[in-house]
Amino acid sequence: MKIQKMKIPTILGALLVAGTLSAGAQMNSDSLYKEPYRPQYHFSPEKGWIGDPSGFMYYQGKYHMYWWGKVESTDLVHYQQITPYAMTGADDNISYFTGSAVIDKNNTAGFGKGAYVAAYTVFEKDSKKQAQGISFSHDGKTFHYYEGNPVLDLWSTEFRDPTVFWHEPTQKWVMAVAKALEKKIKFYTSPDLKSWTWTSDFGPAGDSEKSWECPDLFQLPVDGDSDKKRWVMVVSVNWAQEQYFIGDFDGTSFKLMENHPAEPLYVDKGLDFYASRTFQDFDGTLDSKISIGWVATWDYAPVAPSRYGKGFWSIPRNLELKTYKEGVRLVQKPVEQLQTLRHKPASVKRALSVGTQRLPGFVPDENVYELDASFSTDVSNTFGLNLCVGEGRKVVVSYDTDSHNLVIDRTHCSDVQIPKFSRMAYARVEPVDNKIHLHIFVDKSSIEIFANDGKDVFTLLTYPGEAQTGIELFAQKKGTKMELDAWMLKSIWR
Amino acid sequence: MKIQKMKIPTILGALLVAGTLSAGAQMNSDSLYKEPYRPQYHFSPEKGWIGDPSGFMYYQGKYHMYWWGKVESTDLVHYQQITPYAMTGADDNISYFTGSAVIDKNNTAGFGKGAYVAAYTVFEKDSKKQAQGISFSHDGKTFHYYEGNPVLDLWSTEFRDPTVFWHEPTQKWVMAVAKALEKKIKFYTSPDLKSWTWTSDFGPAGDSEKSWECPDLFQLPVDGDSDKKRWVMVVSVNWAQEQYFIGDFDGTSFKLMENHPAEPLYVDKGLDFYASRTFQDFDGTLDSKISIGWVATWDYAPVAPSRYGKGFWSIPRNLELKTYKEGVRLVQKPVEQLQTLRHKPASVKRALSVGTQRLPGFVPDENVYELDASFSTDVSNTFGLNLCVGEGRKVVVSYDTDSHNLVIDRTHCSDVQIPKFSRMAYARVEPVDNKIHLHIFVDKSSIEIFANDGKDVFTLLTYPGEAQTGIELFAQKKGTKMELDAWMLKSIWR
Repeated sequence: MKIQKMKIPTILGALLVAGTLSAGAQMNSDSLYKEPYRPQYHFSPEKGWIGDPSGFMYYQGKYHMYWWGKVESTDLVHYQQITPYAMTGADDNISYFTGSAVIDKNNTAGFGKGAYVAAYTVFEKDSKKQAQGISFSHDGKTFHYYEGNPVLDLWSTEFRDPTVFWHEPTQKWVMAVAKALEKKIKFYTSPDLKSWTWTSDFGPAGDSEKSWECPDLFQLPVDGDSDKKRWVMVVSVNWAQEQYFIGDFDGTSFKLMENHPAEPLYVDKGLDFYASRTFQDFDGTLDSKISIGWVATWDYAPVAPSRYGKGFWSIPRNLELKTYKEGVRLVQKPVEQLQTLRHKPASVKRALSVGTQRLPGFVPDENVYELDASFSTDVSNTFGLNLCVGEGRKVVVSYDTDSHNLVIDRTHCSDVQIPKFSRMAYARVEPVDNKIHLHIFVDKSSIEIFANDGKDVFTLLTYPGEAQTGIELFAQKKGTKMELDAWMLKSIWR
Repeated sequence: MKIQKMKIPTILGALLVAGTLSAGAQMNSDSLYKEPYRPQYHFSPEKGWIGDPSGFMYYQGKYHMYWWGKVESTDLVHYQQITPYAMTGADDNISYFTGSAVIDKNNTAGFGKGAYVAAYTVFEKDSKKQAQGISFSHDGKTFHYYEGNPVLDLWSTEFRDPTVFWHEPTQKWVMAVAKALEKKIKFYTSPDLKSWTWTSDFGPAGDSEKSWECPDLFQLPVDGDSDKKRWVMVVSVNWAQEQYFIGDFDGTSFKLMENHPAEPLYVDKGLDFYASRTFQDFDGTLDSKISIGWVATWDYAPVAPSRYGKGFWSIPRNLELKTYKEGVRLVQKPVEQLQTLRHKPASVKRALSVGTQRLPGFVPDENVYELDASFSTDVSNTFGLNLCVGEGRKVVVSYDTDSHNLVIDRTHCSDVQIPKFSRMAYARVEPVDNKIHLHIFVDKSSIEIFANDGKDVFTLLTYPGEAQTGIELFAQKKGTKMELDAWMLKSIWR
């Protein structure tokens, strides 16, 4: 995915402009970040379109994030928008697409010691060509277009989304970049971020039915053992899924680990999580790998009903590799510091009644809350939660103890009509110790479910009406026990 | 889809051969058509692979059907297999792919007055080329390869599945044939079935994401008015869906009706219905248009657990066009003569209890039955039927009166592991007169659901164990009334 690069049909384009104008008209401190559908603890820009997470880094004690606008955070809970647009210098025929950014500590590129260097796809509007370019900055807020761009050009219209990082063992810059229609990730190395040498291709593999985009490549310890690290490569697959591969990277090529499954491994099993990116740590002080994704799907992203702008990013996720009986898998957990937003706690412990009941003891007045629920699975049953209940609409989260199928039905949740939005998500989620554990974040327009401590994650948009704040429990049979903790979450914008 | 044309991975190929051998070993009158998973009122060949419905015609008082084996029927309830393979004369480098057949009453082709002429795709195994060829027959049982084949050749590897018919107004043969990767149906005309002239292309349109195959083109009255006819073109979309277009055909080109929806119209909203074909009526005595589809999906068709062979055809469906508030749509109903198989009738009329209960009054001892159920939708509820219940497995058919979402969950139904089989189907089904009406056919390996008198149809494979014959009712709330008629259906093979 790109920085709103998609060809948007004229009518949708008109809607986008209308949305932006309207948002502009509303911009005052009373209403800002209080607009309908506006997430209260997810980052969204003040107004306008948010693109793929780009140029994510931790540097000088701050998390720097770009969509080529820029936002900073010290805690990944609160955000400060620095600029709506950081890029300067390219002519009007150029669009800046998705990419990454590094700190050039040793001045390899000659832009100055410690310069910020962004590497991204240079899209030529007239020719549709996609090549890789760089821009540099001395303050991280204003980037200057490198006059020698593009720095890597295959004369292709399907070559995009470079991730660049410093590979310490080989003392070289590495670029992973997608050849979209070939379903390949190409690797290049460079001494100076300007001249790039091809070293290898990876793919097709896993899910290779549709275009590949937005590669990310990083190392994670396995089972918390930092002496036992693996490389993880995340690849977005058009238009709505991310797969990951686990293996090794030697500075020139990525090889799958032994016994890597042939079937795809998906990062998120929901409907709206894409183009995620991890932070590169230039301070060398982080002890965890954190990623953030774009919560959207191109099918309907341009017509999201929000009027402040379009799109937002996921809550930050702590990434781990963990060994299960089926092999090593990626685990994602919400960052712990989100707990600082909790207030109005409630606890419910009960056997589920047969039928449908309101959740007792926790009655949110807005969809800005967190649920941490555990259900026993030793008795055969189909049970679950209805979220965003009201006005005859809801999101159904249902689990079947026989099939182990977790089903999310948002076909009738939004209070507006959104084309292609009427979809369900489902995936097999195995009980652990005869329990299924669902850690759920609800924030205005979205639901994120971390099942079984982050082994299976489901992210999806919802766009319910403001009055749809009900929560129900349901069960088809007797015998299921539930333990649930709930919290309202404070808005980070108020 | 083709006559087992797909490149089947070696291990699956081995399984297929094993299955065939095993079936061969079992072939005796005691066990034939009594094998596990064998449908009891659907047609499947004695043994081996069944391909797409091909060469369907009504002639001399009989329904003739080919998969290039041949089966005949006088009532579309009982079937007589005529030959396991009707084709002769092509060299070993040729495979016969999907196609149609006509009666050449006026001897336009010179094979003799009233000759059967089959038109199909000639697949060259070495070059992978797909061209169109013909074969002729004087008895409909043995076809002879035309020495002038191919009769239509674009030197393409993606050109297939011709449907040929006589167009009375223009006094010409017409061929509709798919250019698969271009998502086009190409039209040709011919005076003699041998020389073909291109007249027009249709497409891409509707669902054009994946390859197009198996076009069928036929006329239907609108709302039963034979003075008001429309043409319907059915196009299969790889690998698991069929879309249809409604419009007009003048002998040279197909044009969509005014206000044809841009979004795809799907013939079947289940998981396993493909390559359907209607009967051409050469007697001129039929007063209905009937189609039959292939009940399978290429993802797993080669590894279906049945050992007698692979695959079967749907129950015959009566096609109609009907005007709804959203426009003219295709309606499909099971042919009425299937009612002759009914025995052991039961009727149940009751308010659904909250929770899950066995269906009272109808306890099938095998999965060979028909249910005709109607549920009130005026009270908000989620309710449904579990079918093929037993040994901790089931198929869930669930309806939500708020979302109007009909959901079928067969993720945990089969008693064997089938790759990629763990899927759900869902679609919006609007209540009619505050009721949802489900007409359900269960036959060993499959379920066909005709919702609301055939406006929405769901066909899917199930492959349950022999002991999974239970039926349950469930509801999450009070107030839903059900009226259900049920019948066991007699086997057509005993």
